[in-house]
Amino acid sequence: MYIGVDLGGTKITAGLADKAGQILQKETVRTGQNVTEQLAELIQRLSAGQHITKIGLGVPGQVKDGQVFSMPNIPQLGGVNLWSALNKLYPADYTIENDANAAAMAELRYGAGRGCRNFIYVTISTGIGGGIIIDGKLYAGANGTAGEFGHVILLPDGPLCGCGNKGCWESLGSGTALAKMVAAKVESGEATRLKELAKADQLTAETVVEAAKQGDPTALELLDVNGYYNAIGLANLVNTFDPEMIIIGGGLSFNGDYFFQPLLKNLRMFRLFNPEHSIKILRAGCGRDAGLLGAVALVLP
Amino acid sequence: MYIGVDLGGTKITAGLADKAGQILQKETVRTGQNVTEQLAELIQRLSAGQHITKIGLGVPGQVKDGQVFSMPNIPQLGGVNLWSALNKLYPADYTIENDANAAAMAELRYGAGRGCRNFIYVTISTGIGGGIIIDGKLYAGANGTAGEFGHVILLPDGPLCGCGNKGCWESLGSGTALAKMVAAKVESGEATRLKELAKADQLTAETVVEAAKQGDPTALELLDVNGYYNAIGLANLVNTFDPEMIIIGGGLSFNGDYFFQPLLKNLRMFRLFNPEHSIKILRAGCGRDAGLLGAVALVLP
Repeated sequence: MYIGVDLGGTKITAGLADKAGQILQKETVRTGQNVTEQLAELIQRLSAGQHITKIGLGVPGQVKDGQVFSMPNIPQLGGVNLWSALNKLYPADYTIENDANAAAMAELRYGAGRGCRNFIYVTISTGIGGGIIIDGKLYAGANGTAGEFGHVILLPDGPLCGCGNKGCWESLGSGTALAKMVAAKVESGEATRLKELAKADQLTAETVVEAAKQGDPTALELLDVNGYYNAIGLANLVNTFDPEMIIIGGGLSFNGDYFFQPLLKNLRMFRLFNPEHSIKILRAGCGRDAGLLGAVALVLP
Repeated sequence: MYIGVDLGGTKITAGLADKAGQILQKETVRTGQNVTEQLAELIQRLSAGQHITKIGLGVPGQVKDGQVFSMPNIPQLGGVNLWSALNKLYPADYTIENDANAAAMAELRYGAGRGCRNFIYVTISTGIGGGIIIDGKLYAGANGTAGEFGHVILLPDGPLCGCGNKGCWESLGSGTALAKMVAAKVESGEATRLKELAKADQLTAETVVEAAKQGDPTALELLDVNGYYNAIGLANLVNTFDPEMIIIGGGLSFNGDYFFQPLLKNLRMFRLFNPEHSIKILRAGCGRDAGLLGAVALVLP
């Protein structure tokens, strides 16, 4: 049996899977202060009476050989050697990987990438991240930090990104970027239904999609701008990787056509260098389960 | 014995190599109208009295399984199935690959990438191109067009690129882009020695380097702008691939510190996501022989 753990900034989900990757049992807890202890306890409960071969963890940050060196949403794990810490509490065969890389593995094993040898997975959500599948395997780079597509610079004098650079893809095309654009629009006094649709006065990406469903022109325009920047990000991936396909997941992409139509319309404006001059864009097959399935996929035979 | 052929827009160089990759004999001709016949004749001459195992060709364009689908500098080969055409004239075991990919193989086998498993090669010359070495092998993508780094968009409203997109890396950081910037400066009437240094009234990248050697402030500023855009291109490669190193070749890079110092200075301004927050930048080891050595490297055991 195998265990997968999806560690997030707000919750931790762990699941027990058989060697076919079927999830037999799962459990979710809120992320607390003592994350390592929480992880070990979850794993111990799921392991009860089972022979556990391997344990996969998908984590929201950057790890190298189990050593965390950047995890902005779970700062209490910064600098921790998670691999050693877990092995002290519950010795086992752990594989620890960035969550977007794990989600790419989930798509390869369970999702839209089944049977495909070379594809790029992009998650467009609060942030933007990705995973690279080359020759049927995860390519994580020399230090495990390949696929940080959200921090590819698309507009050198663009908005300041959380990372310190300006005009990163994440600062232009993410759900957070969309929310910032809508706030600026409302502030500028433009006539739009966006303000009245805001829940608890919070203008979010969901507000924009809700207004777009009602035909609000400002919302439709903002989704087009979002699609424009995401199209540039994808065009760059095509000319860099020449993949068989690009698979898109993450919260913002779950808005279906409201997200994908402006993206695909804009993507057609750019020259792509593969022989077809176009690229297969697929919606992620694992949806909101990508995290857990990815963690399991990291360790399946 | 092996044969490598470096096909360029102005000349063709072919060489005979032993299985250690040593070039034993080479020959160069000007590229004419009947390129396929020229290639076959060169190969035939070099093969005389030898047992040829494999023949590698590096070509300035995009090929898939020997079929040329884009070769702007040798338009007479556009649409030609070079593999079939060569096999008709001189049957052999041919490997045909994009020249920047071949140069990346040359760096792996003979140059700055020896012993390295994961690196990115970038050529910065008239245009900008690249090759991707992953796990000690060339990664050419699903159709052989991976590594078109010159057409990654860095500035969506930037200068029009030959490919039709705007603000491609090539349109900002190549030798051609530098020559265009200097022409605009001179036209604007800025006090600079650039105009008098121009040979036959041609303002080129070399003119800029020549003026920089004499301390011309405009030339130094232009090299800094060039370094800025090339630094963005490289930062994006680091955050995309997390390579062990980036190797830089191509004509513009042969200007040594005049090229590399502004590049490295600018690169330090960007956040890189690997644990070291820096990247090893190496100068190509194969220099102007990269083409021929790369063609041989494509087929060596």
